[in-house]
Amino acid sequence: MSVFPSRPTTGAEIRAMDKAHVFHSWSAQDEIAPVPVKSASGAVFTDYEGNDYLDFASQLVYTNLGHQHPRLVSAIKDQADRLVTVAPAFANDARSQLAAMIAAVAPGDLNHVFFTNGGAEANENAVRMARVHTGRRKVMSMYRSYHGSTSTAISMTGDPRRWANEPSDSSVVHFFGPYDYRSPFYSSSPQEESDRALEQLEQQIILEGAGTIAAIIMETVVGTNGILVPPPGYLAGVREICDRYGIVYIADEVMAGFGRTGQWFAVDNWDVTPDLISFAKGVNSGYVPLGGVVISDAIRETFAHRAFPGGLTYSGHPLACAVGVESLRVMEDDGVLERVRDLGERVVRPFVEDLAQRHPVVGAVRGVGLFWAIELVRDRESREPLVPFNAAGEANAPMVEFAAACKVRGLWPFMHFNRVHVAPPLVISEEELVRGLQITDEALGLLDQYVK
Amino acid sequence: MSVFPSRPTTGAEIRAMDKAHVFHSWSAQDEIAPVPVKSASGAVFTDYEGNDYLDFASQLVYTNLGHQHPRLVSAIKDQADRLVTVAPAFANDARSQLAAMIAAVAPGDLNHVFFTNGGAEANENAVRMARVHTGRRKVMSMYRSYHGSTSTAISMTGDPRRWANEPSDSSVVHFFGPYDYRSPFYSSSPQEESDRALEQLEQQIILEGAGTIAAIIMETVVGTNGILVPPPGYLAGVREICDRYGIVYIADEVMAGFGRTGQWFAVDNWDVTPDLISFAKGVNSGYVPLGGVVISDAIRETFAHRAFPGGLTYSGHPLACAVGVESLRVMEDDGVLERVRDLGERVVRPFVEDLAQRHPVVGAVRGVGLFWAIELVRDRESREPLVPFNAAGEANAPMVEFAAACKVRGLWPFMHFNRVHVAPPLVISEEELVRGLQITDEALGLLDQYVK
Repeated sequence: MSVFPSRPTTGAEIRAMDKAHVFHSWSAQDEIAPVPVKSASGAVFTDYEGNDYLDFASQLVYTNLGHQHPRLVSAIKDQADRLVTVAPAFANDARSQLAAMIAAVAPGDLNHVFFTNGGAEANENAVRMARVHTGRRKVMSMYRSYHGSTSTAISMTGDPRRWANEPSDSSVVHFFGPYDYRSPFYSSSPQEESDRALEQLEQQIILEGAGTIAAIIMETVVGTNGILVPPPGYLAGVREICDRYGIVYIADEVMAGFGRTGQWFAVDNWDVTPDLISFAKGVNSGYVPLGGVVISDAIRETFAHRAFPGGLTYSGHPLACAVGVESLRVMEDDGVLERVRDLGERVVRPFVEDLAQRHPVVGAVRGVGLFWAIELVRDRESREPLVPFNAAGEANAPMVEFAAACKVRGLWPFMHFNRVHVAPPLVISEEELVRGLQITDEALGLLDQYVK
Repeated sequence: MSVFPSRPTTGAEIRAMDKAHVFHSWSAQDEIAPVPVKSASGAVFTDYEGNDYLDFASQLVYTNLGHQHPRLVSAIKDQADRLVTVAPAFANDARSQLAAMIAAVAPGDLNHVFFTNGGAEANENAVRMARVHTGRRKVMSMYRSYHGSTSTAISMTGDPRRWANEPSDSSVVHFFGPYDYRSPFYSSSPQEESDRALEQLEQQIILEGAGTIAAIIMETVVGTNGILVPPPGYLAGVREICDRYGIVYIADEVMAGFGRTGQWFAVDNWDVTPDLISFAKGVNSGYVPLGGVVISDAIRETFAHRAFPGGLTYSGHPLACAVGVESLRVMEDDGVLERVRDLGERVVRPFVEDLAQRHPVVGAVRGVGLFWAIELVRDRESREPLVPFNAAGEANAPMVEFAAACKVRGLWPFMHFNRVHVAPPLVISEEELVRGLQITDEALGLLDQYVK
């Protein structure tokens, strides 16, 4: 007689067991009703009532190659049969190969890879490397950013998820990044936004004391906080400033890396080479938890004869790496990057620009690859957001209404504050992509009533 | 033509690719020569030269059910075919079931599970829960402890791995735990050690300000820092002190949980119920990265209508949870816990106690289940360690000699400072266990020369 319950088989059983025993991320536990997912394929997942949802969120922007990709599933099964796991102190073919493959497509001399289980740990370790490398302590990160939920990562985060975890690490300093549509710099063009953002960043570095700053970390394209695509010259300018002051430039590409923007790394869109790139998610579509840091020759050299003071039990996990190897191969074999660039420019851009023309509630659209934001406002003139910053409850009702309208039409949207993001699996068919955009269009129609 | 290298197939190729591209945990990168592992089964792994090693380290004390356990491999393959991944905001049968199974064997009212990717994140989130629950900030942790390498986790760590990461989180305060053999309390019996450790802990709480302390975190059996088995009454005393001052008691069972000590949770050996238990490793033998926190009803209730301010993309990953489900079932079906208790008391204890009699270099032995330490000294009288605390290079030569002697005989040992640990997979055969202990015996023979 087992002491254990058996596997729940109906949606109701799963919900009940989930409610009784699973503690969920970022949630008030009694105020959520998680939908049990039964199966998934490509860009679609299905609940226990048989409803199909077109996944415009790629779960949490990580199933870049979609659900149940046959080659990735096979890679898991093959590696499971061969050698599931070895400790980080050993060497392993899948791990060596994935590191070599990442080095092959990473920019410049970023030739070394430290593997973690996810993005938060990747950023923690990138900062650790920068601190030892420079002998400095402070880290500068952007307002409107997310870098993970472990202590240093959440301290660097520039959104409300940091608030409840304060006091933060006192060595983190936040700065304003460029944001054309709501310029903190009173600029009137992307070029001016870029120039002023760089000028203010450099001023802040000087005022903080350049010699105290180990690293600047930034999402190459800000993800959850708005798909903020950097204006012309901005990233190159940051690179230059970092060089001038001996500061390590960490590009957080947990969300933007591995195809999301139509490049291996988002920095490739601007031909910029950071010192460290953190990654996770798209590297293996999250089929097995995996993240890491791509490291320049110079920073690797700092740890040639000096022990790196960090590590983790599952660093370079063979099962996770084997799926990474196959993911990169699929991206190359199937021309995924080219496809993403094509769909982004040929299908998504004209569609969302048209939405912006037709729906008064749409204040701005922006994006790159299959990574887009539709920003909603009550008033195009004042740009007052449709819902307030970090709104909850009644104040957030229009966004809840939008989500419900999408779901009833078979679309699972990604939403954040007053924005709708379009971030489907990169393998989505053109027909599915258009259908998802059409549903978005219909649901936006319900929101136009809120415009003043 | 691919831009990618193909999979390395020889040991030499794997070593070369590893050296060129893989950045290793806790290491000076040019001073290591990781052994490529080709295959593994049960308690044995094999390198590319065909050498078999009996794994007395369970890799990093995590492959509790051994290498390539057929039922766990099948569980991975089945789940991979069914549904590899869903985001944490959904519900999933494997995740619900594993949470319910853990709740079924966890002590007291620890009925809820927050899943992470590993132990560091588990401890980070346990502390986060304790801080919000109590409205206090400080955390007390032991000297001679390891809690992981993310910021809060490494700050709580009480071993040299913290040093290079300092300044630490200033809200962490370290205290002395019991350690019979090198008593910080000048005690002369285990009971006195327990009493004095509790007395000093309470004094320190009063001096720090009880109302400022959110949590006490301790490894139930201190792992890497010495397999320090708590003396009689100690854990119950900690429980009582925590209750008296409204402090959350976090048991770190990342290494000691899920069978290592012959119980589901190590606290079961002393019938103590913490408020939170962090776990990883043994929950699924590390086949897929997984960790988590088991949560009391009271602490879960704090987050019923208040958002928990933490989360991660792969929380409750279905593939990881499916292997967890199967791991717990195997432990139950095969009577693994009973087996561990039997082998520990019937085979290991008498063997290592005999080693202590015969080898002058052995100062003390201690352990529980399949979790033992052999502490080596230059002088039994003064108890001077065989090698200094945190020794490196020449000073550590005897331990390096010991390791080499084991490896040449086909045993892969776990060593830390002046100690050898015995922590094989729980499925090791009795014959293998005895053989490993015999090799340990032989290798210790080489060290007796260092005794004064």
